[in-house]
Amino acid sequence: MEIAELGEFGLIRRLTEDIKPENPSTVKGVGDDCAVLDYGGPNRVLVTTDMLMEGVHFDLQYTPLRHLGWKSVIVNLSDIYAMNGMPRQVTVSLALSKRFSVEDVEELYAGMQLACQAHHVDLVGGDTTSSLTGLAISITAIGEAKAEDIVLRSGAQPNDLVCVSGNLGAAYMGLQLLEREKSVYYQQLREAGDKKDEVQFQPDFSGREYLLERQLKPEARRDIIKRLRQAGIHPTAMMDISDGLSSELMHICTQSHTGCRVYEERLPLDYQTAVMAEELNMNVSTCALNGGEDYELLFTVPLTFNDQVSQLEDVKVIGYITKPELGCALITRDGQEFELKAQGWQPEGLRPKD
Amino acid sequence: MEIAELGEFGLIRRLTEDIKPENPSTVKGVGDDCAVLDYGGPNRVLVTTDMLMEGVHFDLQYTPLRHLGWKSVIVNLSDIYAMNGMPRQVTVSLALSKRFSVEDVEELYAGMQLACQAHHVDLVGGDTTSSLTGLAISITAIGEAKAEDIVLRSGAQPNDLVCVSGNLGAAYMGLQLLEREKSVYYQQLREAGDKKDEVQFQPDFSGREYLLERQLKPEARRDIIKRLRQAGIHPTAMMDISDGLSSELMHICTQSHTGCRVYEERLPLDYQTAVMAEELNMNVSTCALNGGEDYELLFTVPLTFNDQVSQLEDVKVIGYITKPELGCALITRDGQEFELKAQGWQPEGLRPKD
Repeated sequence: MEIAELGEFGLIRRLTEDIKPENPSTVKGVGDDCAVLDYGGPNRVLVTTDMLMEGVHFDLQYTPLRHLGWKSVIVNLSDIYAMNGMPRQVTVSLALSKRFSVEDVEELYAGMQLACQAHHVDLVGGDTTSSLTGLAISITAIGEAKAEDIVLRSGAQPNDLVCVSGNLGAAYMGLQLLEREKSVYYQQLREAGDKKDEVQFQPDFSGREYLLERQLKPEARRDIIKRLRQAGIHPTAMMDISDGLSSELMHICTQSHTGCRVYEERLPLDYQTAVMAEELNMNVSTCALNGGEDYELLFTVPLTFNDQVSQLEDVKVIGYITKPELGCALITRDGQEFELKAQGWQPEGLRPKD
Repeated sequence: MEIAELGEFGLIRRLTEDIKPENPSTVKGVGDDCAVLDYGGPNRVLVTTDMLMEGVHFDLQYTPLRHLGWKSVIVNLSDIYAMNGMPRQVTVSLALSKRFSVEDVEELYAGMQLACQAHHVDLVGGDTTSSLTGLAISITAIGEAKAEDIVLRSGAQPNDLVCVSGNLGAAYMGLQLLEREKSVYYQQLREAGDKKDEVQFQPDFSGREYLLERQLKPEARRDIIKRLRQAGIHPTAMMDISDGLSSELMHICTQSHTGCRVYEERLPLDYQTAVMAEELNMNVSTCALNGGEDYELLFTVPLTFNDQVSQLEDVKVIGYITKPELGCALITRDGQEFELKAQGWQPEGLRPKD
């Protein structure tokens, strides 16, 4: 059977459904942003891991190594925050092809160190090896949270409010922009023929800096976790948005045995995202729903927290949780309901469906 | 600067020398088989990670996926045992190319599960993604040990005995055997020309099963850790042998600020290893010193434990620790001293030097 038939989530389900933890220190295994472990201390230990492959997750033609280092750490820390925890350590494994110089690896590491410093995380180990092909980066983050503070994907209840931090779709628009400029460059190279060496290409990113930053140097929302705590808000379910809002909403609803309604008009969008989508003739709501790599936090809170959550800076209520039989749907500006779809990765890379 | 100029260990030193942990939960970072963390429980938490890349660490032409899954978990558990700890959890990240079917991934996972079950370890998470090129496997193992039980690489003292479990060089001889049969097969294919499809190749492994097993299905020495504990022996330094005895001895001596003397005549060898080395016209001691992938335990104990350690099943005393100014040397059968050399990985793969 081809993996594409099952998809990422189907494959993971199939591989892990028979796993039965036998250690008392394993509180929660596969199925959330992090595993939850109990090593007898005052706090639970959280563990998460992510792998980034050249050509799938990043393109070194337009990704500075320092940014790549930053991002590869940040995407892991984001998973710790998504459990309402605080990250403390990371391990970093690198597989390097021959074309990497010592200076290249130092750049990559410098970006990782910056991310660690910004989030008060220690780099405590890893593995460095060679690769016959592209660069592979595998990072594991370790963090902690009080048992009662941990927020799983499975705690959403009907009538809870669905909230999201920041704005959506910008990282995906940044990717489109980088891909467009790359293809313009190759077009110029082709047209130049023998005079290839004379091509002086300057990509046009003016006024789009925010989109580039969201794609190349994303942030993990430590600030939101702190703000929620200060406001005394304990989400019922939470996860970070890496595959796209639509996909993550489906995870929360499946694991919480609920449905949901989110409003198109409430999807948080940056102005540059909207302009870029129009320029590329794409539906901006589709980008916000399926774009991915936002690393914003998606969470649900009881309706009674409506006032508190509405006052939170950089957080927006976009809908509500329903009974499971109502399914997961987007309510469009003209009042129509569209069923949400989960995507996960596709073998050919990220591509939102219309 | 090319990475080859620094080598693996030089590169890691350069990248990590400026790292200063800032979290109180970080007890020991980079530089040993595992990081040591203190999350306030009765035991310390141990974390280690290893990455295996197709074409560098394994060749799918002769490595059954089930064995590969087993081995990829075992090499991580071995690092936990090497701290005198017990492994409890692993996370597994896979990057899969298109040619993998669901059944292939299930085979790989089945091997991982077998290793987990044999060592009472839970698979608690991971990441599954696509790869444009070969298969990449990244595993992180988490374990625990009482603070006072942990054995670092840095505790060896002059006059300590140098001990090693099992025997050395067999995994490397297994690799040579597999590579030889592979090249015979390709030779036959070339000679067959148009009649390639008629080639009925049967590799000749008779009487060499032990070497194959050591290469394809290594074990992590949980039994030795338990035996040491039962015998009341607390090693002063320990690590597992992945890169080869010579390289690992250098690590212990460098980090303990000592030298060492090991005796060629005491290197533990299996009969099949010796026969295979002779057949390939290789020096069997070189294979034992530099072959790698043995996953045996190398440790030092105070001289006062001489009687206890000599009685331990499957453990052999091979030499002793000296003052640092004496350096690290092998004493050959005819009484000559040869300086030991550390190897680490080479860009072109494992290859012992004569």
